[in-house]
Amino acid sequence: MTSRTVDAATARSAELAASIASRPEAHPMLTGDRPTGDLHIGHYLSSLRTRVDLQNRGVDSYVLIADYQVITDHDGVGSIKDSTFSLLVDYLAAGIDPALSTVFTHSALPALNQLMLPFLSLVALAELQRNPTVKDELRASRRPLSGLLLTYPVHQAADILFCKADVVPVGRDQLPHLEQTRVIARRFNAAYADEKPVFPEPSALINDQQLILGVDGEKMSKSRGNAITLAASADETANLITRARTDAEQLVTYEPERRPEVANLLTIAAGFTGSSPEELATGLGASGGRGLKALVIEAVNEGLREHRRRRLELSRDRGFLQGVLRTGNARAEAVAAQTLTEVRAAMSMDY
Amino acid sequence: MTSRTVDAATARSAELAASIASRPEAHPMLTGDRPTGDLHIGHYLSSLRTRVDLQNRGVDSYVLIADYQVITDHDGVGSIKDSTFSLLVDYLAAGIDPALSTVFTHSALPALNQLMLPFLSLVALAELQRNPTVKDELRASRRPLSGLLLTYPVHQAADILFCKADVVPVGRDQLPHLEQTRVIARRFNAAYADEKPVFPEPSALINDQQLILGVDGEKMSKSRGNAITLAASADETANLITRARTDAEQLVTYEPERRPEVANLLTIAAGFTGSSPEELATGLGASGGRGLKALVIEAVNEGLREHRRRRLELSRDRGFLQGVLRTGNARAEAVAAQTLTEVRAAMSMDY
Repeated sequence: MTSRTVDAATARSAELAASIASRPEAHPMLTGDRPTGDLHIGHYLSSLRTRVDLQNRGVDSYVLIADYQVITDHDGVGSIKDSTFSLLVDYLAAGIDPALSTVFTHSALPALNQLMLPFLSLVALAELQRNPTVKDELRASRRPLSGLLLTYPVHQAADILFCKADVVPVGRDQLPHLEQTRVIARRFNAAYADEKPVFPEPSALINDQQLILGVDGEKMSKSRGNAITLAASADETANLITRARTDAEQLVTYEPERRPEVANLLTIAAGFTGSSPEELATGLGASGGRGLKALVIEAVNEGLREHRRRRLELSRDRGFLQGVLRTGNARAEAVAAQTLTEVRAAMSMDY
Repeated sequence: MTSRTVDAATARSAELAASIASRPEAHPMLTGDRPTGDLHIGHYLSSLRTRVDLQNRGVDSYVLIADYQVITDHDGVGSIKDSTFSLLVDYLAAGIDPALSTVFTHSALPALNQLMLPFLSLVALAELQRNPTVKDELRASRRPLSGLLLTYPVHQAADILFCKADVVPVGRDQLPHLEQTRVIARRFNAAYADEKPVFPEPSALINDQQLILGVDGEKMSKSRGNAITLAASADETANLITRARTDAEQLVTYEPERRPEVANLLTIAAGFTGSSPEELATGLGASGGRGLKALVIEAVNEGLREHRRRRLELSRDRGFLQGVLRTGNARAEAVAAQTLTEVRAAMSMDY
């Protein structure tokens, strides 16, 4: 992306935030996750909280469990069902309300998936190969590029456009991911619906929060063993944080550039307490790494206590979870079917 | 394809033909066309007749109008609807019976189209780029390769496998096209359903009839203006055949290698009269090109008289045609939904 495109996206995000504040109901939102394993506090403090906030402010929210986008990673998919329900449990425990948000899975939405076909006709192979997500995933994997991974940006366009979402909350690093969807919406309208556009061009709602790192100072991820998951017990959480990397200075200060690990722990504690990292550092004074960690353990375990209680309760009720998913899937499929009807009419395929 | 693969396919085709003869109901068949314009006598004499014959012998027949596979070719798709109904008219006039065969369009089958997603995960980009259809189409077009064209072999697998067809009638030149579908069926079963396979590996039913050429001796195609279409009038047909290329010899003989244009005209007349090309040549003796053409004109116009009468009648009743398509689409989608349910269960995505 050129810096001009980034500037334009940033400007759109600011406008969008203002418009959501005054007319939340006018801005359908698409968010979601791939069911790859348990969510961690990084997800909780950034994406999950944002979603719940937007949902509660009246934004029409669609939350996708992207089950078809994990089969690329796995030889078998025996655990997809468990991962899907685990993700759903975290959504609900965090405050996603199935009465307000539509939670759904790719695999149950034929009408959404059908949008792949017309959208694929609007995109060239060369464009797909240049896509940053495709390139990243390809670099991270030792396997040949699969057709599913290659066409991932087109599937993502179907995810966003099936419900005519015009809000997609993303981190700044994910901005390029939205460009392909914007291009597809524009091309579809130009080719088939120039008088009455079928699709909006969705905008990113940029999340500029500090990225939460793992306890080793690296990117937080389950496979690195450095992630504080929402499903972890209070003891597991304490053990992980006790092992966190800090430095030898006794005075606790918030200096993200010079002391990234200490700053990360302060950011985590700040996320759960509502104080700023600077305030917390001042309060800790010369308590050193040990004092800092005690504060973080307390903040995380206290901040997640209710979430974890609900998590446990919900996990025991598979029937309820199935009901939530089935209701969400039916609602989302009805929306997708309506959009598909418009798409077919625009393409003169309404026989 | 290696000659060993071709030999194996030929052997399977012979076995299949024998099995169809004794148990036609055990062999679901998928055939179809892209709605690119009017069908011509080449289609009539080979694919259409074969389909009608198999249908009437009790084979469970699915006939696809591949409307999503023409959007790659066109800037707009204003004429897709007309082309689709025109194709349907030819099917019905030729004897495809909607009570026996399921006629349907891609665009109305979300559950079929969804199969693209799991199937895309089973195929590598490199494989798609090696596909002979993709390569041919790419060579024939001046445009960059679209995502739709690239993934065409995967869509074709969905067409064939959604109804678990194990019979796909093809010309010998199209044999490689079926290989990708066989590979996808095999890989899906191995990855997700090794105990109870979801998909059969479909076999080609090879049509070894002589290929019908255009009146100029080249491949028959609408764009070349050398095609005798089923929709043409008797006069248009006569004019086209009168202009057909022959040679200066007065004695009519059937020598495909030495006199391909004359042989082609004899093959056409044979197709419509039931006599062999050799018999017809003997009967014509020294009638020359003029006598041959008179015979061909008579044979084609007589052979298509009833087809054309029904064609005209059907064309006037759009309501009836819509009903046929809607019934076929509903029936096909129910079959696709059932298959998708099995696919989702096999992949542990039955929440």
